[in-house]
Amino acid sequence: MTLDIGVVGTGMMGQDHVQRLAASVPDARVVAVSDVVVEQAKRVGERVGARVYGDGHDLIADDGVQAVLVASPGPTHEELTLACIAAGKPVLCEKPLAPTTDACLRVLEAEAALPRRLVQVGYMRRYDDGFRALKQRLDEGLVGRALLLHCRHRNASVPAGFTSDMMITDSVVHDIDVTRWLLGQEIVAASVFKARPSSLAPAGLQDPQMVLLETDQGVLVDVESFVSCQFGYDIRYELVGETGTISLGEEPGPRIRQQGRHHGPIPADWRERFGSSYERELQEWVGGALRGQITGPSCWDGYAVTAVAEAAVESLTTGRRATVALVDRPALYG
Amino acid sequence: MTLDIGVVGTGMMGQDHVQRLAASVPDARVVAVSDVVVEQAKRVGERVGARVYGDGHDLIADDGVQAVLVASPGPTHEELTLACIAAGKPVLCEKPLAPTTDACLRVLEAEAALPRRLVQVGYMRRYDDGFRALKQRLDEGLVGRALLLHCRHRNASVPAGFTSDMMITDSVVHDIDVTRWLLGQEIVAASVFKARPSSLAPAGLQDPQMVLLETDQGVLVDVESFVSCQFGYDIRYELVGETGTISLGEEPGPRIRQQGRHHGPIPADWRERFGSSYERELQEWVGGALRGQITGPSCWDGYAVTAVAEAAVESLTTGRRATVALVDRPALYG
Amino acid sequence: MTLDIGVVGTGMMGQDHVQRLAASVPDARVVAVSDVVVEQAKRVGERVGARVYGDGHDLIADDGVQAVLVASPGPTHEELTLACIAAGKPVLCEKPLAPTTDACLRVLEAEAALPRRLVQVGYMRRYDDGFRALKQRLDEGLVGRALLLHCRHRNASVPAGFTSDMMITDSVVHDIDVTRWLLGQEIVAASVFKARPSSLAPAGLQDPQMVLLETDQGVLVDVESFVSCQFGYDIRYELVGETGTISLGEEPGPRIRQQGRHHGPIPADWRERFGSSYERELQEWVGGALRGQITGPSCWDGYAVTAVAEAAVESLTTGRRATVALVDRPALYG
Amino acid sequence: MTLDIGVVGTGMMGQDHVQRLAASVPDARVVAVSDVVVEQAKRVGERVGARVYGDGHDLIADDGVQAVLVASPGPTHEELTLACIAAGKPVLCEKPLAPTTDACLRVLEAEAALPRRLVQVGYMRRYDDGFRALKQRLDEGLVGRALLLHCRHRNASVPAGFTSDMMITDSVVHDIDVTRWLLGQEIVAASVFKARPSSLAPAGLQDPQMVLLETDQGVLVDVESFVSCQFGYDIRYELVGETGTISLGEEPGPRIRQQGRHHGPIPADWRERFGSSYERELQEWVGGALRGQITGPSCWDGYAVTAVAEAAVESLTTGRRATVALVDRPALYG
Repeated sequence: MTLDIGVVGTGMMGQDHVQRLAASVPDARVVAVSDVVVEQAKRVGERVGARVYGDGHDLIADDGVQAVLVASPGPTHEELTLACIAAGKPVLCEKPLAPTTDACLRVLEAEAALPRRLVQVGYMRRYDDGFRALKQRLDEGLVGRALLLHCRHRNASVPAGFTSDMMITDSVVHDIDVTRWLLGQEIVAASVFKARPSSLAPAGLQDPQMVLLETDQGVLVDVESFVSCQFGYDIRYELVGETGTISLGEEPGPRIRQQGRHHGPIPADWRERFGSSYERELQEWVGGALRGQITGPSCWDGYAVTAVAEAAVESLTTGRRATVALVDRPALYG
Repeated sequence: MTLDIGVVGTGMMGQDHVQRLAASVPDARVVAVSDVVVEQAKRVGERVGARVYGDGHDLIADDGVQAVLVASPGPTHEELTLACIAAGKPVLCEKPLAPTTDACLRVLEAEAALPRRLVQVGYMRRYDDGFRALKQRLDEGLVGRALLLHCRHRNASVPAGFTSDMMITDSVVHDIDVTRWLLGQEIVAASVFKARPSSLAPAGLQDPQMVLLETDQGVLVDVESFVSCQFGYDIRYELVGETGTISLGEEPGPRIRQQGRHHGPIPADWRERFGSSYERELQEWVGGALRGQITGPSCWDGYAVTAVAEAAVESLTTGRRATVALVDRPALYG
Repeated sequence: MTLDIGVVGTGMMGQDHVQRLAASVPDARVVAVSDVVVEQAKRVGERVGARVYGDGHDLIADDGVQAVLVASPGPTHEELTLACIAAGKPVLCEKPLAPTTDACLRVLEAEAALPRRLVQVGYMRRYDDGFRALKQRLDEGLVGRALLLHCRHRNASVPAGFTSDMMITDSVVHDIDVTRWLLGQEIVAASVFKARPSSLAPAGLQDPQMVLLETDQGVLVDVESFVSCQFGYDIRYELVGETGTISLGEEPGPRIRQQGRHHGPIPADWRERFGSSYERELQEWVGGALRGQITGPSCWDGYAVTAVAEAAVESLTTGRRATVALVDRPALYG
Repeated sequence: MTLDIGVVGTGMMGQDHVQRLAASVPDARVVAVSDVVVEQAKRVGERVGARVYGDGHDLIADDGVQAVLVASPGPTHEELTLACIAAGKPVLCEKPLAPTTDACLRVLEAEAALPRRLVQVGYMRRYDDGFRALKQRLDEGLVGRALLLHCRHRNASVPAGFTSDMMITDSVVHDIDVTRWLLGQEIVAASVFKARPSSLAPAGLQDPQMVLLETDQGVLVDVESFVSCQFGYDIRYELVGETGTISLGEEPGPRIRQQGRHHGPIPADWRERFGSSYERELQEWVGGALRGQITGPSCWDGYAVTAVAEAAVESLTTGRRATVALVDRPALYG
């Protein structure tokens, strides 16, 4: 049984997904691609023998497309996801679900009216072996109840045009999602603290930031967001429980002893660090879509993450703690 | 483009391969399975909709089978692989190529007469991320020329009937293959030393053993083979070069701080440790077979590993160093 | 040349110091001890052949006492240290210099009027090999300017009577001192955040706490203070600079591979973790006192640490950020 | 109570000992030094106010010398130690006890006739925290009976004139002593294997070597001796027991994350790695000498280590396994 997939957006992320579907997901077939830059869509589509569209809505309407992967820019996510819901087709929407809480709510409401979920949001850390093992240990009660969570989110550098707000809406959103998933708690407040900016950060960028989140059960979560750290892609967690801590440590790889030091590698970027998480995300999504059971990050997750990020951006702007108020959770999201 | 594969042998290893081909190798399809225990072959075949045979030769003769994976017991490998060569079909033969050097030579000679390779032997450590990175660092010259290689091969326990010889022919063969591949050198002598046997090893088993190998360029390789180590599956390497060392260290996974200790996990067995290596082995083999280019461990490798293992078993028996004399390498193996 | 020392206070800390002076400081001799519990002072004094006093002032007045180590309870520190200053004798005062900023200021002013320092305060982490190496790497410019500092201060448990304020005034003061010494910057504000309290903490104790400090150059410092962590004494630092990070990692000691895990030890308490730091503190203090050059943590350090701790306690009480305003630094403290 | 010590030999090792006795051993006083290079002895003696001799025998005869530390070249050890025994003075003799087994036996027999020990030999690894903890874990039965021991002995480089034999008699002797002490077993055979020599080793030096030792209870011990490893001083052990392994791992110190790697330091030489072991050796020796109880490595240890080293040198020369036959152990060494 094969799932025929249409991919909307053939930029770097879309191309990565097309490639992964072809190389690592036996039950998937990319039958259509679209991009407003039609030439790019053509080049990508030719490699896998897919039909090509210039408009995502045409792709969604294609009767041969059974499921849709949305990898176009964030502002287009709302209307494309709504179109998939209207067409009754499973959709894997890259993060964010939508750039604003209000837009997220519109998608949420549309899906909440259905008998079962169609939408999954692309928070793929939940598919990482390390994060899963961390959650498993916590859920087994190995260290008792969670009290604190320390997160590090470091990128070597960012492209031109990256703003202080994007450090939250593009980067910290992953930590927000992981926090909610790992703890099974919602975040009720966010405070952002500005560290002395690095002289190696782009001019005007408030980098690094310390983001402090509070959950509805009182767990404190601190996220160091540092996107000009120079030395590599460095994602680290330590969960502090009542009887011990669990941390995600050094990455594997050969250790060298040389010139007075022992050393090991740090990943260069998220593609290296999380490549296999993306693979598993797609494998599980395709399997779920074929069975009619979407189990990954939901519209509710997409909405809640965006709401927390919005509060954090508010705190970054005002310098004060900002609270998060979520709507009632629809029955669909149990 | 899909490769239609027949799998000979549906024991644990064969079942694992069928499952992996279905779940992780998009370009592969298992179209036939065989086993002398036909009922077992039927159960396995049904799951993937494959034709079922009681005799591997019938499977090889099946016109719908484009390539063959041999996972039946070692003593059957020679004749099955020869049959694949005769039929002109690519074959991935689980290790060993054959249990004796003479049998390996017969397969080698049959294939060496062909214009290109058809046979790959299942030494899958070459497909492990860690081993590949180790080789890459060495080949880059990071630590200069290799001088020594320390290997640890530890299993928590072994099934009843496991013999002292099998510690070499079943376990150390992996280290022999890795040594040859990593260094690009042949092994010319083997000496086995008997340590005080563990009281937790099965009665009569000489466990642990220290195997000392010498390469044609003078590199010394010591392999600790300990198959009743109780604590887990522990594979470790340290290569000593002229300016530094490279080691494969602890496995990844969450680190716990609890009850006065910090601790991390050790894999339970080879399926956990090398699961993804088997996946990649199959992915690359299928890709190569479709392109007509087999690049994995060759008949020559299968022959040389068996010859070294034979020398090591001789040393285990006699208590003396045993030398290895290989035939001339046929042109096919460049 | 030998320094004849009087030790005021023969509780656990005082006894430890007497023992260390005898066992590890060749140039020191304990010639007098005092304690309001005279019997205890007698037992301790007998072991080293020291004169015994019931009143610290009598010990300070003893002409045979060349230098004084104050290890009595915090509220007595002010008057004892002032007496040493009046007597012109070098004094190593255990932390804190005094429990309140005002009291610290009185000692500071008395010493600032002298031509050279007599007082050292017992912040002994500055004498730890790890902390010194961390500072050296930072000062060498290895990771560029400091931007953030993450500190963990975990105790397995605390004695009855330990209060939420004491988590700052007894524990976090070490991190405050290290921050100031490591960065060479003063702290200008403190905010304390209350995490969900551990159910294993004594009733009423706000444990753990997250303390956020801001330096006068904009470095953000977060201190996790968790004194009921159950699993051991766990002190960890990560300094984040513009081009890299420096962290104090796992403690040394044998690594065990056993029962599916690899594990290493965590110290049980501060005596195990910092035993050699106390030794070096005493060795360097004795050496300095003999040369007439006191170089360890000064009255200014003692005053500044207490001022920051006072602000943190205020923040713990009010729930708001509290600022720190220091007096001008007297010339004596350069 | 103070022990008045005479130090014979004021080369690098002797100077280090004089300095350590002054700085770290409260109960010791260096009252005399001697060296055939009298000018050097004068310079060293002046620093600590010690009497100066040109002949070690005169120093031993000095009535003010209560105990003797022999740090002169190995060939002088026999007669100096015999002189101390004759004078009834405790002596700490730097390794080796004597360069030949026969010479060792002469000292052994002289001491064995006494009612109690006077001689200690300078194998100081027994005083290292890590080695002690390793032995403690083993003795507690944490990993069951010992089966194998892997040792690494790497130096960055060696001075001109260092020979292949000295790699055993100067370096591997430490591993021989540790093996005997750790396991409580004698070594009965030694085999030396020659690896491809490093092109960075001095011309003619067989470097690295693999030394394989066998104990009287069947434990196999392999020692990698590599004295031109370039990258630092690297001493590592892994003991393999029936239920687990214990290893001495990376040294402590700050960990850096920088330029795509995480890295930590390796000691430069033995003075950095074992400095505190030498301190403790002296502290315990002085304490024992004052109490009349010498408990460190004995003449028997010195004799047995030299006998094993002699066998290893024989194996290096002949290329064959060499056995070790010890005399009966005198009652004094119980």
